[in-house]
Amino acid sequence: MITHVVSFRWKPETTAEQIALIKQALDTLPAAIADIVSYQCGPDVGAHGPANFDFAIVATFENIDGWRTYDAHPEHDRVRSETVRPWIAERAAVQFES
Amino acid sequence: MITHVVSFRWKPETTAEQIALIKQALDTLPAAIADIVSYQCGPDVGAHGPANFDFAIVATFENIDGWRTYDAHPEHDRVRSETVRPWIAERAAVQFES
Repeated sequence: MITHVVSFRWKPETTAEQIALIKQALDTLPAAIADIVSYQCGPDVGAHGPANFDFAIVATFENIDGWRTYDAHPEHDRVRSETVRPWIAERAAVQFES
Repeated sequence: MITHVVSFRWKPETTAEQIALIKQALDTLPAAIADIVSYQCGPDVGAHGPANFDFAIVATFENIDGWRTYDAHPEHDRVRSETVRPWIAERAAVQFES
């Protein structure tokens, strides 16, 4: 299996409403992309203070080719470019064997 | 549930042997800390190039108090301070409801 992790810091002007729309858009991806085995995302709960990033996605795939299909999928690309990317200040991504 | 995500970039001088020791040390934590429900970690597989971070941990807990116990646990503190922290260049952490 491959676990895919992405953490984001949002731009300071990002509103709570925008973050809710980001989560809503991301949560449509598992139904649109069959290669996704599991998918969870959400805003940081605030237990660790401002050193934390603001939001994370954790998704799993059978193998790295499943991740590649997801990464290049047109629906992923649409959500990423229309809803997520405009608000990204920092991004930290890793894919690891799990 | 709470999902805890941490991604790291290691200092440039960090060797593959050191990264293997980091993973080995982190993988002892689930047996030492009962509050951990699931725990996986590993080095980035290199599918996305140098924009990625180098290593990630994904762990789950029943609730945020489970995460707090883990975060403050002496064995976690020992592994963190002796084996992981000396090699950290950048760190991105999030805890989210899952």
